[in-house]
Amino acid sequence: MKRILIIGGGFGGVAAAKELRGLPVEIGLVDRRNYHLFQPLLYQVATAALNPSDIASPIRKIFRHQKNVSVVLGTVEKIDLQQQRIFIEDQPIPYDYLVLAAGATHSYFGNEQWGKDAPGLKTIEDATEIRRRFLLAFESAEIETDPDARRASLTFVVVGAGPTGCELAGAMAEVARNTIPADFRHVDTATARVILIQGGPRVLEAFPEESSLSAQRQLEAIGVEIILNQRVTEVRSDGVMCGETFIAAHNVFWAAGVKASSIGETLGVPLDRSGRVKVNPDLSIPSYPNAFVIGDQAAAVDGKTGKPVPGVAQGALQGGSFVGKIIRRELKANEKEEQAPDRGVFNYFDKGNLATIGRNKAVAEIFGCKLAGFPAWVIWAVVHILFLVNFRSRLAVGFGWAWTYFFGDRGARLITGKSEVQIKRPPNFD
Amino acid sequence: MKRILIIGGGFGGVAAAKELRGLPVEIGLVDRRNYHLFQPLLYQVATAALNPSDIASPIRKIFRHQKNVSVVLGTVEKIDLQQQRIFIEDQPIPYDYLVLAAGATHSYFGNEQWGKDAPGLKTIEDATEIRRRFLLAFESAEIETDPDARRASLTFVVVGAGPTGCELAGAMAEVARNTIPADFRHVDTATARVILIQGGPRVLEAFPEESSLSAQRQLEAIGVEIILNQRVTEVRSDGVMCGETFIAAHNVFWAAGVKASSIGETLGVPLDRSGRVKVNPDLSIPSYPNAFVIGDQAAAVDGKTGKPVPGVAQGALQGGSFVGKIIRRELKANEKEEQAPDRGVFNYFDKGNLATIGRNKAVAEIFGCKLAGFPAWVIWAVVHILFLVNFRSRLAVGFGWAWTYFFGDRGARLITGKSEVQIKRPPNFD
Repeated sequence: MKRILIIGGGFGGVAAAKELRGLPVEIGLVDRRNYHLFQPLLYQVATAALNPSDIASPIRKIFRHQKNVSVVLGTVEKIDLQQQRIFIEDQPIPYDYLVLAAGATHSYFGNEQWGKDAPGLKTIEDATEIRRRFLLAFESAEIETDPDARRASLTFVVVGAGPTGCELAGAMAEVARNTIPADFRHVDTATARVILIQGGPRVLEAFPEESSLSAQRQLEAIGVEIILNQRVTEVRSDGVMCGETFIAAHNVFWAAGVKASSIGETLGVPLDRSGRVKVNPDLSIPSYPNAFVIGDQAAAVDGKTGKPVPGVAQGALQGGSFVGKIIRRELKANEKEEQAPDRGVFNYFDKGNLATIGRNKAVAEIFGCKLAGFPAWVIWAVVHILFLVNFRSRLAVGFGWAWTYFFGDRGARLITGKSEVQIKRPPNFD
Repeated sequence: MKRILIIGGGFGGVAAAKELRGLPVEIGLVDRRNYHLFQPLLYQVATAALNPSDIASPIRKIFRHQKNVSVVLGTVEKIDLQQQRIFIEDQPIPYDYLVLAAGATHSYFGNEQWGKDAPGLKTIEDATEIRRRFLLAFESAEIETDPDARRASLTFVVVGAGPTGCELAGAMAEVARNTIPADFRHVDTATARVILIQGGPRVLEAFPEESSLSAQRQLEAIGVEIILNQRVTEVRSDGVMCGETFIAAHNVFWAAGVKASSIGETLGVPLDRSGRVKVNPDLSIPSYPNAFVIGDQAAAVDGKTGKPVPGVAQGALQGGSFVGKIIRRELKANEKEEQAPDRGVFNYFDKGNLATIGRNKAVAEIFGCKLAGFPAWVIWAVVHILFLVNFRSRLAVGFGWAWTYFFGDRGARLITGKSEVQIKRPPNFD
């Protein structure tokens, strides 16, 4: 029986495996995690609106009824394209087809030491850590007596104004201004500053300029301060250097850069600057027609326009589906001992862009049509609910949003962590 | 203004603070966590039925509208009863009244080294750790080729058959038998053994004997193996010594003993064997009439029967309320410069006992009336929903239970943890 190994249970890997449904093959879907994560909503876990499990589904459950899929919880250490095998814990597993969909993580552009003071947002653990720091900041301000330290506790810097950065900054401003002011006695949380720093000339650079301007206005309306055309040159535990200016802030969050999973480095094939594999127009690895790379890990170009395929969920889903169909066709042809049909080239179909900023605030660009404010926000919510992978998540997320919308409250305001919370300051009874 | 310090935001501390609503006093409620935890449902987080935030509410939110309460996130290091002050981070805070309600943690009876191989269940982090180990056990079995190791991976030992132990064992057996078998390809999760070990002659010793027998039958019906009259004499990473017998098990969970919070040791007053403060009949500390101890931290006796007050939510709630009322009366009398009324003695009102074992399975003993099976299970569910501290939790828990009940599925099957999941065995493609 032919064996297809898929590395990564994100949007791309799951889509590829689903295309192979019903085939008499052995599919191994390998992931380090036992769940598929709906990353576009991760910032809502970080800002206490959703629970981790609302946006994560066990991969086993997704493939419960697709009996040709074996889910393997494990870390792939090496890929040997020549010998057609991967290694998990030094154990080789041969394959007939490989689909590499291991995704990306955040990048500090060579300043990995910034990670400790400026966590990024790619995993559930990242999200609960950001939530912990975000909520602790207000606790810290509540018992702080020194005005400068209190100000720094209430200053949140978000580095990078792509969708994640804008969504994070918008949600943080909303929590500080609308959700929690009545909960504190000694500090006015509405005075918190949320500063969004962007290296380029506008927020949401992947969107049309009109949408960027609208997003900027909407962010400013809920109190986010936006700094454009400035790079963060240093991150410290007490703040960031932004160009020549030091911003005192105890809370810095990183939404600036991504780099592909490091497993690509074991392939021995050319990678781009972000560590992505430079793939053929059919998403296969040059010289290895039975090994494909999809999603955030691939430096792919659209067959029609020649433009790079963006690192978004749609790109991964479409890539996974495209590659799954190729493998299906070739396996069928092989079975009938026919010539396999031509693979064609991957055409990315850009359905548009969506980003939310807060309650009733969003920008959308769908099939070339630009929307902002409430209509964009409704479309954003509907699209995200529909794309959640299972019905339970849709209900849970819908419930969480409805609650937050109508009661202005967030249901998941827990500070969790391995060690207990310790604030090294005396409580303030004034 | 008089200051009342309450240490601990559990059932007892919250009840005491609520009794003081509207008084012109300054109440400081100190907790190491930012949330009040509904501990009776913690085992449902450990077995993936509920989310952490479903059973945890921010303490600040509970007291949002009670303006005389200041919530302080911090760890109390020492209490000086003579000088009437507590210390947080070396900083003294004086009080007029003290309510000590810091609860209990699990105890290994002097074998604290067992904790690493047999985690207990007292905090959210404990629950997600038990969930991680429980779910990983099946992942590990799925890729294990050695039959003995596979068997040990699928053997779960729960030490202690009080309510938590019975509930944990019952839920684990249900998950293994009903929730996940279809998700695995190489292992039959229904063959998992769940072994419940109890030192005494019956499970649920606090219940009437009839209920214990019923609980035992119900547990056995869903496949839990019960060992009575045996003590665990050693816990190792590969199993437990139970009397003279070694049970090979990679997963051991501890539900056997409790000890009171160690802050009691700084009081310099007599404690019982479990570290609880031996309080007066009015729950005050001998010789310190303005310092009270309530809940799991108090060794209190019922004023009417002379029997010990059990360490359950009801005991803490009633103790908190009783102490709150004393303080309220004395403050009022003090205001009017009158003689304070006699304090009376604490009478524990035993409303009964409830424990659930699984779907439609439970035992209840309410006002002396004994129930088992479905009726007990319905009462258990209704009582627990009603006692949840806020409306959102009630909806979220109700939804989670309805989902689990009707679809036999559990919504929170996430393996999370600081480091990534690593299983040191080759995957098994057979």
